[in-house]
Amino acid sequence: MNVPRPSRDLLTRYLPILTWARTYDRDTATSDLVAAVIVTIMLIPQSLAYALLAGLPAEMGLYASILPLVAYAIFGTSRALAVGPVAVVSLMTAAAIGQLGLTTPAEIALAAITLAFISGVFLTLLGVLKLGFLANFLSHPVIAGFITASGVLIAASQLKHIFGISAEGHTLVDLVISLFEHQGDTNVITLAIGLSATAFLFWVRKGLKPMLIGAGLKPRLADIFAKAGPVAAVVVTTLLTWIFGLADKGVKIVGDVPMGLPPLSAPSFDMSMWSTLLLPAVLISIIGFVESVSVAQTLAAKRRQRIDPDQELIGLGTSNIASAVTGGFPVTGGFSRSVVNFDAGAETPAAGAYTAVGIGLATLVLTPLLFFLPKATLAATIIVAVLSLVDFSILGKTWRYSKVDFTAVTATIVLTLLVGVEVGVSAGVLLSIFLHLYKTSKPHVAEVGLVPGTHHFRNVKRHEVETLPGVLTLRVDESLYFVNARFLEDYVLERVAECENLEHVVLMFPAVNEVDMSALETLEELNRRLSEQNIKMHLTEIKGPVMDRLKRSHFLHDLSGEVFLSQYDAWCALKAGAPVGTEQKDLAAQ
Amino acid sequence: MNVPRPSRDLLTRYLPILTWARTYDRDTATSDLVAAVIVTIMLIPQSLAYALLAGLPAEMGLYASILPLVAYAIFGTSRALAVGPVAVVSLMTAAAIGQLGLTTPAEIALAAITLAFISGVFLTLLGVLKLGFLANFLSHPVIAGFITASGVLIAASQLKHIFGISAEGHTLVDLVISLFEHQGDTNVITLAIGLSATAFLFWVRKGLKPMLIGAGLKPRLADIFAKAGPVAAVVVTTLLTWIFGLADKGVKIVGDVPMGLPPLSAPSFDMSMWSTLLLPAVLISIIGFVESVSVAQTLAAKRRQRIDPDQELIGLGTSNIASAVTGGFPVTGGFSRSVVNFDAGAETPAAGAYTAVGIGLATLVLTPLLFFLPKATLAATIIVAVLSLVDFSILGKTWRYSKVDFTAVTATIVLTLLVGVEVGVSAGVLLSIFLHLYKTSKPHVAEVGLVPGTHHFRNVKRHEVETLPGVLTLRVDESLYFVNARFLEDYVLERVAECENLEHVVLMFPAVNEVDMSALETLEELNRRLSEQNIKMHLTEIKGPVMDRLKRSHFLHDLSGEVFLSQYDAWCALKAGAPVGTEQKDLAAQ
Repeated sequence: MNVPRPSRDLLTRYLPILTWARTYDRDTATSDLVAAVIVTIMLIPQSLAYALLAGLPAEMGLYASILPLVAYAIFGTSRALAVGPVAVVSLMTAAAIGQLGLTTPAEIALAAITLAFISGVFLTLLGVLKLGFLANFLSHPVIAGFITASGVLIAASQLKHIFGISAEGHTLVDLVISLFEHQGDTNVITLAIGLSATAFLFWVRKGLKPMLIGAGLKPRLADIFAKAGPVAAVVVTTLLTWIFGLADKGVKIVGDVPMGLPPLSAPSFDMSMWSTLLLPAVLISIIGFVESVSVAQTLAAKRRQRIDPDQELIGLGTSNIASAVTGGFPVTGGFSRSVVNFDAGAETPAAGAYTAVGIGLATLVLTPLLFFLPKATLAATIIVAVLSLVDFSILGKTWRYSKVDFTAVTATIVLTLLVGVEVGVSAGVLLSIFLHLYKTSKPHVAEVGLVPGTHHFRNVKRHEVETLPGVLTLRVDESLYFVNARFLEDYVLERVAECENLEHVVLMFPAVNEVDMSALETLEELNRRLSEQNIKMHLTEIKGPVMDRLKRSHFLHDLSGEVFLSQYDAWCALKAGAPVGTEQKDLAAQ
Repeated sequence: MNVPRPSRDLLTRYLPILTWARTYDRDTATSDLVAAVIVTIMLIPQSLAYALLAGLPAEMGLYASILPLVAYAIFGTSRALAVGPVAVVSLMTAAAIGQLGLTTPAEIALAAITLAFISGVFLTLLGVLKLGFLANFLSHPVIAGFITASGVLIAASQLKHIFGISAEGHTLVDLVISLFEHQGDTNVITLAIGLSATAFLFWVRKGLKPMLIGAGLKPRLADIFAKAGPVAAVVVTTLLTWIFGLADKGVKIVGDVPMGLPPLSAPSFDMSMWSTLLLPAVLISIIGFVESVSVAQTLAAKRRQRIDPDQELIGLGTSNIASAVTGGFPVTGGFSRSVVNFDAGAETPAAGAYTAVGIGLATLVLTPLLFFLPKATLAATIIVAVLSLVDFSILGKTWRYSKVDFTAVTATIVLTLLVGVEVGVSAGVLLSIFLHLYKTSKPHVAEVGLVPGTHHFRNVKRHEVETLPGVLTLRVDESLYFVNARFLEDYVLERVAECENLEHVVLMFPAVNEVDMSALETLEELNRRLSEQNIKMHLTEIKGPVMDRLKRSHFLHDLSGEVFLSQYDAWCALKAGAPVGTEQKDLAAQ
């Protein structure tokens, strides 16, 4: 089923729930319920762990996994996306709040709530204004680099919990220095728990699944079992800590988690806090949206469904607002949890709502049981989860394919690790835009000739082609706009200066998709300069939209030469020495 | 004579004076001297007036017109450019210094010197690093709009001197409100001087020249005479003020201008001042460079000379540093004065050095005579000069030609007038970049067919063409990169979903000048999705540089269809139902 088009009904556009709820039946409900149970089991340790990563009390992770899921179920368009706290966004939340220099837990919690609120409003606005395309300004390599660097940072930030020491810092260097400074404080029991949990979780991920498949389990089911590994680690280490009283031996535990449903909360409207959190909130929103929408699209494609990116913005925006009013922090669609949801058979966003009920029950019942949960266990689940995000192969891929992309991704990784997440991702975006513009600032221009026996024209340097005496034919391989307008003028005049007895310059425009006002003025200038040297300037193969625009200016009227529909027509006319200057200009539009 | 290429000699590259000084003879010297005398006469009132506009003591205008001209004569490449204080840069200087909230004249002078220094260092650095192309990020319409809006602002800022009142403000609204608030203080004698000087100067500009030509003067000479109008206004009003003791009747006069050559000065190295002045200095540098280089290029073209934009940066950079060390403020090449210099026969930059000597003599001899010069006269010369810069026709031109350019120029004008010069020009630059990217984010994609009897393919909506059953041929009219990568995927899949019994999708890439890593991943994904639907994807007319890059990836290997050199080859193969999948992939490169 496709998401309905906006024209059909405004209500169903903004409330996708109306589309699927109409045909919701018992079978679908069963599938959704099964998926919800599995996701709930997976989500409990994750939400605790990501709250820890964000530097927040554990219960905020649970709170961020209840109402936001319901909001997404109402407003979201993906059938399988599982919303909640995720690693990269939690790291960015920690970095953003860190800038405020707050000290009391209440202030920090309020800042996280405010961050979720700003992010939610921003995402919803983008969605309503249909500005989802803005996310495209993040190039794939920049995203890949950012996620990889974030994974490394996150893993490094969790090492302190594994060693049972305190360490601070939002950059790799700060973290490593801080870890070395405090290494003497290492708590051996904590380290033992942390290392065994990490080893166990790695084994679950790499070894358990093949074993289960070997034992006859279906691969999909084996995968789901493997994903439940963290729950086992949580249960076992909590029991050990309780039974042997390890908390008294220095093992840091989660401690008292308030029992009960999320409290109602409101963001701060302190302007100085908003001004500090605005940029981080924008970055968190965009990164969260890009991550989420790519998971949603991948999963939708597998079932030949479609998602609507602008409505997704509204879904995620309302989720974050929901998180802000119920004591949570920024959320988005998580990769591994959505895949589990999908594989477990979730058919509609109702699965998310059922998961919310599951987490809600957990806050009512399970929280006392989490008292003795060691922080080292949560750190281990984070480390194992994020290391799967780390993939430096993007460096090699881009190095081989495009140095420009390589530069952008390298800058993103290095700056994210050494300066921070916000600087890293901002630099990646700005650098990729700048480098793209830079590439187009010196366009490829090829002198072309006729491939004998055909009507085709090719680069004289790459092919055996014929050229006409007194005629210089240049194919311009770029749209002409302000950044490269002057380059073309200089280039053509330089080439002309090198040629003897030149009578005609033919500019082939099959790859010129735009001629803006600056470029138009340059072409007018070029025409004037060539005329002064008694050289006629001709244009060929102008694209329709470009021609439509040129006709609205004086340029075609002032042009010393002609406009030809095809380069071959120009070739024939110039070869025959046909009287040029006759008006064919109206015909020429591709 | 051309400027020598960098490869020839590093010394002559960085010191263009070595090129022309070698062949400097008596005839050239005479021409240069004549031009210098005329420019000196024109420059004295201008430099005083622009110092006033920048909010600085009058003598700083003279100081900025001595050593900077010598520096440009050594390092500049234009034969006719006349450097010194100019209107727009002086306005920007006033705005930049205004931000510092300084009160004492000494602090304000130091800030102006520092601004010139930062600007000089920045320009020199850009030149040495050959980053002159950065100036291309300013589109022509944005420059035109900015100059026009600045002209209006400058004229408005001078009205207070015409009325003899005080008024403050860096935006049009502030200025107008301030003028109305103080209108009661109007000094009638000042107003009379101001209005008559303005009327006289307008007449000189519009009426005197035709009259002189009518009287038998050569047009060029008549023009030069007309340009000397301000000197006449200065002399007459100064005499009147002196004789009738108008200063005692409330006419504000220039007052005591220190006699003697410029003092040595040094910029401030106060970090908080630098951090405030850095952005303004960058904007002043770029605006000044763009204005200057376009004058220089226009004049050079008239004599078939060339200028070197990167060396021009060094010329202007050293001029500004020279200004900073001799008590001046930011300078650049001025339009009207360079035209006068050119028309008066200047043949080498030596004319600038001679002008410097002239201004130097003026500081030694003339300054006492300037005591009774009314500020209203200087304001009148500024108003008449800048109103020639004001040209709102750019709005109409861009409205007809391109709404995107229109948007950028409108934003530039409105923000410059209402918020300030820095916000105006920055917004213009950012908006034109953003709108350019936005335009490319949803590329034009045309379904094409064969024009019967030819080898050409054209848009099915614009031409009568043939298409093949089961084949969808799309011509992509844009380079593919991260901003539009996903658009193409969505577009093609949507078009495919509309077609029945589709077997082949042919993507024609004659206008695709780039396929970056993000776009490559999208094409891979598209190929995979189409394969799942048993549709083969073919590519045709790939440009050489794009093909070179694609060959470095796995994409061509995984491609379900073929790569054809020309669209016509694809047509023939698909029409014949030829076995596709054979490897022609190596041949295809334009």
